[in-house]
Amino acid sequence: METIGISSRSRQELVDITAKLRSTVGEKGWKQGVLTVFCPHTTAGVTINEAADPSVVQDIKETLARLVPEGANYRHMEGNSDAHIKSSLVGCSEQILVQRGDLVLGTWQGVFFTEFDGPRSRKLYVGFSPGSD
Amino acid sequence: METIGISSRSRQELVDITAKLRSTVGEKGWKQGVLTVFCPHTTAGVTINEAADPSVVQDIKETLARLVPEGANYRHMEGNSDAHIKSSLVGCSEQILVQRGDLVLGTWQGVFFTEFDGPRSRKLYVGFSPGSD
Amino acid sequence: METIGISSRSRQELVDITAKLRSTVGEKGWKQGVLTVFCPHTTAGVTINEAADPSVVQDIKETLARLVPEGANYRHMEGNSDAHIKSSLVGCSEQILVQRGDLVLGTWQGVFFTEFDGPRSRKLYVGFSPGSD
Repeated sequence: METIGISSRSRQELVDITAKLRSTVGEKGWKQGVLTVFCPHTTAGVTINEAADPSVVQDIKETLARLVPEGANYRHMEGNSDAHIKSSLVGCSEQILVQRGDLVLGTWQGVFFTEFDGPRSRKLYVGFSPGSD
Repeated sequence: METIGISSRSRQELVDITAKLRSTVGEKGWKQGVLTVFCPHTTAGVTINEAADPSVVQDIKETLARLVPEGANYRHMEGNSDAHIKSSLVGCSEQILVQRGDLVLGTWQGVFFTEFDGPRSRKLYVGFSPGSD
Repeated sequence: METIGISSRSRQELVDITAKLRSTVGEKGWKQGVLTVFCPHTTAGVTINEAADPSVVQDIKETLARLVPEGANYRHMEGNSDAHIKSSLVGCSEQILVQRGDLVLGTWQGVFFTEFDGPRSRKLYVGFSPGSD
């Protein structure tokens, strides 16, 4: 298991971690199987979406903020209930196939850490299960 | 593969299954790899979120009920379309890393069975894939 | 790793891929472990829900269209921001346990490719990690 560190810079931010994951796969020598990226925080998550046009990430953030507003009437008194709820909607892990020592992603796909209650210093855990042919 | 039984007590309920999962990992002697918790029901799911303050779970339930109301104008005639839709939004499985014979979770994280059409007698399947160093 | 081809026929469509996955498991001789179905497209995804009554799938599509409307005021200029956002809400992969050479699914469950920006020719990647008893 490996740990990746992330420093988010705003309250809601999608941080592209694709290059870090590719480096981890290379350094560990993982060849063929399934990678799991897991977020141990309850006000953040992990998602896969378009990495080419940053307006896609912007639309995801704005739509989540519209559906689950920060200042709504929540019970949890820490002011970040929206962040917890977004975490359960987006999910806290992704599984990505590994072939010939590299992540198998689509042309436009990137893997993003989704910060919903930043800015903060965060981490992700990365594990690997070898696959069958 | 192991089976965990759950008895939900209300229509929408998040049941903390972290202790049951930890017991399963210990009993099976699973040391290092990836655990999969899978819900075989189409009106329920699995999520990971804060287990310390129960108001977080309450906010998740209330927000899902606002976004996908029980009594809206649906086509499916069994009165539980909202539960099916919530299941696809939250997802029906989680993957959790296992190290040194224990689940790797963040300080505040718990694993929850998410009942959306209870009360019912339910079950979850738990599987394990050994990991690489 | 195997590739499954899909031809979607409308803009938003849930295509039942359960039979194709079962065939893949049989042809590959995968006996016990965890299957990963991964969508390499950023305007589509994968979900598990009821396959018996097609009105459930219709309710999922209509509710997603209500929560994330196609024609809202988005930044991404390709007219498919709603499809990207739905992809992150539903998720781009599913993990399914395999036992005795078959998928372990609930009575009413089917696995669906979720097209949000069709009609298009699409593909899914399928990988397998052997499991422990």
